Amino acid sequence: MRVQIAYKTSVPRNANMAKLQAGYLFPEIARRRSAHLLKYPDAKIISLGIGDTTEPIPDVITNAMAERAHALSTIDGYSGYGAEQGEKKLRAAIAATYYADLGIEDSDIFVSDGAKCDISRLQVLFGSNVTIAVQDPSYPAYVDSSVIMGQTGLYQQDVQKYGNIEYMRCNPENGFFPDLSTVPRTDVIFFCSPNNPTGAAASRDQLTKLVKFAKDNGSIIVYDSAYAMYISDDSPKSIFEIPGAKEVAIETASFSKYAGFTGVRLGWTVVPKVLLFSDGHPVAKDFNRIVCTCFNGASNIAQAGGLACLSPEGLKAMHDVVGFYKENTEIIVDTFTSLGFNVYGAKNAPYVWVHFPGCNSWDVFAEILEKANVVTTPGSGFGPGGEGFVRVSAFGHRDNIIEASRRLKQLYK
Amino acid sequence: MRVQIAYKTSVPRNANMAKLQAGYLFPEIARRRSAHLLKYPDAKIISLGIGDTTEPIPDVITNAMAERAHALSTIDGYSGYGAEQGEKKLRAAIAATYYADLGIEDSDIFVSDGAKCDISRLQVLFGSNVTIAVQDPSYPAYVDSSVIMGQTGLYQQDVQKYGNIEYMRCNPENGFFPDLSTVPRTDVIFFCSPNNPTGAAASRDQLTKLVKFAKDNGSIIVYDSAYAMYISDDSPKSIFEIPGAKEVAIETASFSKYAGFTGVRLGWTVVPKVLLFSDGHPVAKDFNRIVCTCFNGASNIAQAGGLACLSPEGLKAMHDVVGFYKENTEIIVDTFTSLGFNVYGAKNAPYVWVHFPGCNSWDVFAEILEKANVVTTPGSGFGPGGEGFVRVSAFGHRDNIIEASRRLKQLYK
Repeated sequence: MRVQIAYKTSVPRNANMAKLQAGYLFPEIARRRSAHLLKYPDAKIISLGIGDTTEPIPDVITNAMAERAHALSTIDGYSGYGAEQGEKKLRAAIAATYYADLGIEDSDIFVSDGAKCDISRLQVLFGSNVTIAVQDPSYPAYVDSSVIMGQTGLYQQDVQKYGNIEYMRCNPENGFFPDLSTVPRTDVIFFCSPNNPTGAAASRDQLTKLVKFAKDNGSIIVYDSAYAMYISDDSPKSIFEIPGAKEVAIETASFSKYAGFTGVRLGWTVVPKVLLFSDGHPVAKDFNRIVCTCFNGASNIAQAGGLACLSPEGLKAMHDVVGFYKENTEIIVDTFTSLGFNVYGAKNAPYVWVHFPGCNSWDVFAEILEKANVVTTPGSGFGPGGEGFVRVSAFGHRDNIIEASRRLKQLYK
Repeated sequence: MRVQIAYKTSVPRNANMAKLQAGYLFPEIARRRSAHLLKYPDAKIISLGIGDTTEPIPDVITNAMAERAHALSTIDGYSGYGAEQGEKKLRAAIAATYYADLGIEDSDIFVSDGAKCDISRLQVLFGSNVTIAVQDPSYPAYVDSSVIMGQTGLYQQDVQKYGNIEYMRCNPENGFFPDLSTVPRTDVIFFCSPNNPTGAAASRDQLTKLVKFAKDNGSIIVYDSAYAMYISDDSPKSIFEIPGAKEVAIETASFSKYAGFTGVRLGWTVVPKVLLFSDGHPVAKDFNRIVCTCFNGASNIAQAGGLACLSPEGLKAMHDVVGFYKENTEIIVDTFTSLGFNVYGAKNAPYVWVHFPGCNSWDVFAEILEKANVVTTPGSGFGPGGEGFVRVSAFGHRDNIIEASRRLKQLYK
């Protein structure tokens, strides 16, 4: 094969793409993991890095997906293009299960192939002329998709932030809830609760303040509730539990961490009809157009799985899956606590946020990988506010969690 | 429930969204279909409008999907997040099946949830500072996604075109291949062959001209080959059959119309490593970043189906499905020909492009719906060059195609 590398097109590279730093966090971690394996081919690596589910999907759910797959080979059971917004039954089941009495209608629910994909579609919806705020630290897709859409300035190496993004610092000192009195107005506020990576869930009082802040500023909150089912205390599971939130908030959610659907791909986004742009145009109308133009609906087989998730048996099965990972979380918390570390999160989320004061979090990541063969996620990968922390995911087989705990105790004893 | 509609946020509506005209074509047709049913509740509508597959998926394929679904409920068979670019085995099978000897490597293949979704991701990749050209008429997602990304000017009602898009007229006079000598340079050229809606497949000679045109201009071709398996003559099935195409072309494709995957959602996009932006940066590197940031891979169950599609039994089964729809196409062609209409396309595509000279195509659409209860697609929905035509899709059960044919003969006798 002749590879002629002399020819270049005259198409300019998207300047926003050029602003992005290094790789997207998780592929970067995967690369370092591979490099480690190359160095130590026999290393028995335990991955507590990317929050990737490990436990089998309950068979009440997989049976429903297999049944739908088989039905597709029959004349009566076959279906082609579905509604871009999702199957009616599933939209109704999501509204009834998660938003009963919150005034959310079936038609406010847009079924998707996952929260990450919907975050990107929301950014396309907003376009390049909006400003955003994010929790710092936070799930990197908010910032990266904002950069890609041209909402930001260049990356500023000295502060490790992109220009024109408000980084709302969340740390142990403020209980992982930003001091809103110091946050300037932005058009959009990405807010993840329970938070990835810190594991902190905002209380009702805090979310009430957030909604008031958005309302006073005329901002739109994009509320990421992908971990809501992990909440153990009385923190709200949906932003729409807060009165008035429908006028200022969108909520995005996912089956990934409840039913092990990280690979199956199914989520949803709620856009209330009363949420309006400054010209009075309903946000939902434009989002519907984006969904119809840029997406063609989630896989019908995945949607059959989603419907089974919301059956009484499915809900019980998901509850058990979540419970299993929460037990893992306790083991990890106990491990680090017994070693004298301060840990955060964990109570309402499958993530343990471990403090290594004064340390570079990529160094900590590298040390744990090198010496314990355990993959974690360096806190600074989630923003400058994550420096000095490492996120340990509770997604893992029990024996791996116990073995990782043993190795960590050996490393830090 | 109190609906307070007085409150508006201060977030400006994306000005590009405001440029979009009416609804996206196919939801608009669905709306008109519903309105017809409201008027005539007993109407036995036959849908030959949206190109939606109707025949069951061969069970060699659904069995594989059901098997993967069941496996997900076992410890050994469970998998979480897959590679954003798709499963290795599937990428390899696509490269081997469709691009053998064309110099395309497994790692050039990005598996997706469908061509429409990838077109949108490609637009996000290019950003707002590029210019595009489209065939006129063409599949509306190219234009609409371009408008959404801010690449265009306003819609000009008089010419029914958006500003700053080159509409390359394709009509019977030029054999449905644009006169490139009159087409100004653009950064990106969307080219669909076999074309949706005209059904025309470009010949090797024509595609050679297109590649030369792109190369002379330094343009990138986005080649949509979603209907390639419908080609009956010796037209190329991939743009990469043309020497030098790898330096100027991306190809997007789909299992939708081969295996009935319109609802299952699976496609792929090929981005050769030698395709470079003007600054020498590989397009594939940026596309990989888009896929990792804005997408999380196609459903693992759908990917298991894709792998089964490419097994010897699967290929045979897909061939039979395509053959069935091609027989439908002949029935439709014979119907209109016998009525004295000039029809185009059909030979290499599941679409019949019927000429109604001097007629408004929405009027023709409305008459056929009103009097024959048959849904078609008005040609002008695909661009001003589609005016005076109606697209009739060959996706349908055989008895429906025969009944539609009977009704059309009655209507136009």
